[in-house]
Amino acid sequence: MPTKRGLLPVLAFGFALLIGGLATAQTRDPLPSWNDGKAKQSIIAFVVQVTKAGFPDFVPPEERIAVFDNDGTLWAEQPMYFQLLFALDRVKALAPQHPEWKDREPFASLLKGDVKAALAGGEHAILEIVMATHAGDTTEEFEKIVKDWIATARHPTTKRPYTEMVYQPMLEVLAYLRANGFKTFIVSGGGIEFMRPWAEKVYGVPPEQVIGSSIKVKYELRDGTPVLVRLSELDFLNDKEGKPVAIHQYIGRRPIAAFGNSDGDLQMFQWTTAGQGPRFALYIHHTDAEREWAYDRESSIGRLDKGLDEARSKGWTVVDMKQDWKVIYRLK
Amino acid sequence: MPTKRGLLPVLAFGFALLIGGLATAQTRDPLPSWNDGKAKQSIIAFVVQVTKAGFPDFVPPEERIAVFDNDGTLWAEQPMYFQLLFALDRVKALAPQHPEWKDREPFASLLKGDVKAALAGGEHAILEIVMATHAGDTTEEFEKIVKDWIATARHPTTKRPYTEMVYQPMLEVLAYLRANGFKTFIVSGGGIEFMRPWAEKVYGVPPEQVIGSSIKVKYELRDGTPVLVRLSELDFLNDKEGKPVAIHQYIGRRPIAAFGNSDGDLQMFQWTTAGQGPRFALYIHHTDAEREWAYDRESSIGRLDKGLDEARSKGWTVVDMKQDWKVIYRLK
Repeated sequence: MPTKRGLLPVLAFGFALLIGGLATAQTRDPLPSWNDGKAKQSIIAFVVQVTKAGFPDFVPPEERIAVFDNDGTLWAEQPMYFQLLFALDRVKALAPQHPEWKDREPFASLLKGDVKAALAGGEHAILEIVMATHAGDTTEEFEKIVKDWIATARHPTTKRPYTEMVYQPMLEVLAYLRANGFKTFIVSGGGIEFMRPWAEKVYGVPPEQVIGSSIKVKYELRDGTPVLVRLSELDFLNDKEGKPVAIHQYIGRRPIAAFGNSDGDLQMFQWTTAGQGPRFALYIHHTDAEREWAYDRESSIGRLDKGLDEARSKGWTVVDMKQDWKVIYRLK
Repeated sequence: MPTKRGLLPVLAFGFALLIGGLATAQTRDPLPSWNDGKAKQSIIAFVVQVTKAGFPDFVPPEERIAVFDNDGTLWAEQPMYFQLLFALDRVKALAPQHPEWKDREPFASLLKGDVKAALAGGEHAILEIVMATHAGDTTEEFEKIVKDWIATARHPTTKRPYTEMVYQPMLEVLAYLRANGFKTFIVSGGGIEFMRPWAEKVYGVPPEQVIGSSIKVKYELRDGTPVLVRLSELDFLNDKEGKPVAIHQYIGRRPIAAFGNSDGDLQMFQWTTAGQGPRFALYIHHTDAEREWAYDRESSIGRLDKGLDEARSKGWTVVDMKQDWKVIYRLK
C-alpha cells in the first residue's frame, strides 16, 4: 500500500488513466451509423466548437439545450402519424361502448375500415377522433393504455413494433450530445402524454424533457383520492409558431441546437438560430423510398417545403437520408 | 510507477479514499441552520429512507422529484407578495407613458402612494396592475426589467434586497436533496418569468425547473428577427388545483416530496402524498413575529388554515419557524 508521501503521484496516475480512457472514447466515432459527409461533419464540428473550454464559442453546460421534433425526426411518420394509428386502434377498442358510432362520421367509416373516408373530414374529423380516444380517462389510466398499445401494436406495412421504427442515427446524435453535456428535449406536435410513457426508455429523454401538444386536465378528489382527469378540450397545439412558445414556456431558455424534418419545425429553427453565439439547425430530408419513405414539398404528413428553402438560404444542415444514413431503424 | 500487475489495488485504494471522503461529507450536518427536532429529523429520515440502495423504500434517482412553493416557502412574502411590490414599482416607472392613469383606478391611488385603496378592488384590481406591468414587452425585454429590479430594489420594511430575504434553512434543504440525487423544482403561484431570471443564481434551480403562473406569449417576426411578445391574457394560474395540473404538465411524474406554506399548496401535497411508496410533505408555519412575520389562518397573504388541519391529521411535517430555524435569512 502506498505511503502518504507516495499518494499524490498515485492518484495523479489514476487520473491520467481515467483521462486517457475518456480521450479514447472521444476519438471513437460517436456517429457510426452516419456516412462520412457534410451532415455528419457539421454535427461533430458544432459539438467540438461549443464544448472546448477557453475557446470563444464555448457554451457552459447549463446552456447546452438541444431540441428534437419527434414524428419524422426521431421515428417514422408514414403512412400517417403513429399517434393517429393509435387513435384508430382506440376507436375499434372503444366501439362496443359507443353503439352510436356506427351511424356517425368519422367513426362509421373508420369502423368499416375506410380510413380515407373517415379522414376526409380533415382537421375537424381528426380532432373528433382524438378527443373521443384521448379524453375521459385519468392520467394514470391513459398512461397504461399508451404503454399497453406501444408494447403490442404493429406498424401496418413494416409489421414492426413502433418503437423499433426509431432512427438509429438520431439515437446516436441524442447520446452524443448528452455525452457532451447537452440536455436533450423533445418538442413535438404529438401528444405530450402519448410520448412520455415510453420516451425515457426508447430515447433516454425523461418525461420532464418531453414537450408536446396537450389537452386540459382537471384535478379531482374521488373518494378522497386525488386524480387528474383528461378533458375533451385542447390545451395547446405544439406546432409551427407554437414550438418557440412552448420552448419558452417549458424550458425558459433558447436552445442552441434544433433538429426537425418539416415546416412545422421552421419557427423552432428560426427561434433557435436567432440567438447569439454558435447555433445549429438540422433538417432530415426523407429521400429514401426504399428503406423508408420519400416525401417533402407535397406531402400532407411532414411537409418540408418552406423549411427546405430556408435551410438552403441560411446554411442549415440538410440530411439526405438515403446518402447520409448507413442504417435507418434502431439496431436491436 | 506501479506495474500493470499492481494497478488494480492502487486504483482500489484511490476509490477507497474517494468513498471515505463521501462518507465524511455524509456525516457532516447537512442542515446546520436547523435546530435539532422533529422537523429536521423527518427531512433527514426521509432522504436516508429513499436513497439506501437495496432497501425496500429505495427510489431510483430519476424519480426523486421534489417540488417547492416559492412565496413564503423559499423567500418571504410579507407585507405582500414581492412580485406585487415589483408591479407597484413598475406602475411608477411606467406612469409618464400613461397620463390616463392619473384618473383611473387602481392606478390613481397607487400613484398617490395609497396602496391599500388601490388594492381595495381585490383580484380585479390586482389583475389590472399585473397586466399593465407584465405585458406588452418581448420576453427578452421583460427578463431584463426583472433582472434590473431584483438587483436594485429594496424591501419596504427590512430595506434589504429581496434575494437576501430567501430562507437559509430552505437553501440547505434544496442543496441536501440535490446532493442526494433529487431534482428540485419550484412550483409557485408567482409568475414563471418573474422567477426564472434569478432562480438559478439564488436557488440553484435552472429555468426549466421553475414552474409558475403565466401569461400568453405570441411568436412574431420583427424585421425578420423572431421575438416572443407577452400578451395581456392569463395563460395559467398556478395555485391550488392548478399546482398538480402544472406538475403533471411540466414534469410528467408525481413528486415524492413537496414543500409549501399555505393552503395554495394543499392540492400539491395531496397529489404528492397519494402516490405509492415513501412520500414527504412539509409545511412551513410562519410563527416568528420577531425575526420574520407570524401569520396563518386569518392572513390574506399565505393563508394556512385547511392545510394546517390536514397536515396534523395526515402526519405531515410542520416547521415551527421560531423553534426550528436557527437563522431565517440567507447567510452571505
